[in-house]
Amino acid sequence: MTDRLSSQLKFLAEADKMKSVSRQTMLSDGSREETDAEHSWHFALMALTLFEYCALPGVSVDRVVRMALVHDMVEIYAGDTFAYDARGYADKAERERKAADKLFALLPEGQAVEYRRLWEEFESMETPDAEYANAIDRLQPFMNNYLTNGHTWVKHGVAMEQVYERMEPVRAVLPELWEFIEMVVRENFKKGI
Amino acid sequence: MTDRLSSQLKFLAEADKMKSVSRQTMLSDGSREETDAEHSWHFALMALTLFEYCALPGVSVDRVVRMALVHDMVEIYAGDTFAYDARGYADKAERERKAADKLFALLPEGQAVEYRRLWEEFESMETPDAEYANAIDRLQPFMNNYLTNGHTWVKHGVAMEQVYERMEPVRAVLPELWEFIEMVVRENFKKGI
Repeated sequence: MTDRLSSQLKFLAEADKMKSVSRQTMLSDGSREETDAEHSWHFALMALTLFEYCALPGVSVDRVVRMALVHDMVEIYAGDTFAYDARGYADKAERERKAADKLFALLPEGQAVEYRRLWEEFESMETPDAEYANAIDRLQPFMNNYLTNGHTWVKHGVAMEQVYERMEPVRAVLPELWEFIEMVVRENFKKGI
Repeated sequence: MTDRLSSQLKFLAEADKMKSVSRQTMLSDGSREETDAEHSWHFALMALTLFEYCALPGVSVDRVVRMALVHDMVEIYAGDTFAYDARGYADKAERERKAADKLFALLPEGQAVEYRRLWEEFESMETPDAEYANAIDRLQPFMNNYLTNGHTWVKHGVAMEQVYERMEPVRAVLPELWEFIEMVVRENFKKGI
């Protein structure tokens, strides 16, 4: 076996740890929190299924799916930072940069650069692909929160304004979905959540 | 919200149940079995990462990734059938066809046909995309079995010949990976597994 293939298999074995990184989002049946691997799969499927609603020109849905597959892999070392955790966000960028150095170094050079660029592009939110990817990345836990009566919002006392702020990327990227966001937020916060 | 979008959101909510379908394959740390959603993510990432070793001409890796995302979704209703379970395989096709009727009916017509065709193509193993997809679909649990000292093979008393037979699609599609298969099988069965 070549060193190249051997290093790729090591990376794919390390990837298995994405199944042990727990998120705040609950499964829709409320039985447990979802893992990063499960979230990444759901995100990729949502990106594919809702692509017709993407209002941005020039987005490649297949590239967004690739982005979905790798976008959270640094969390194998950096852990999941809860979206509404201000303190966690203070050093998130630095923790994740170090994790990326470690993770992508497992891959052969060209592929390391390719995967790292996908992750950096996702994080920067500056290209149409990254904007669409970020909108879907926020929509997925939002949907699960809706299906579990706002579980995460209740548990962490998240305010309505914080939810709107977090979901803001959806407004421009997926305008037809924004109506769903507003309906869910109104319904939940009316119930006193 | 249009009926079309509403049905797509219902499909994506139903998709969440892939996180509750348990497989025989253990996580690499041996802590629990992986779920269908986790397997599908790992499969997609492996298809992307090992594509340079695909010996078949004309394969679209992005199409294979799409196939990975939907290939096991019928198991939401049909359950996971263990690869070495002869009795389970007897009615697998019929159970999964019924499950597909139910699952894809959630989607708007055009998208239902698109996703169902991806699943049927994967199952038929007749196109280059489906052959590559099936090789990776078998490689993923094989790798996890390797990382857990042949857990599934030991638990179910799977014979060496059965493993070779199951892994056969890898030989022609990913010849460089076949060496890894042989090394692992030799190593494990020498230890008396």
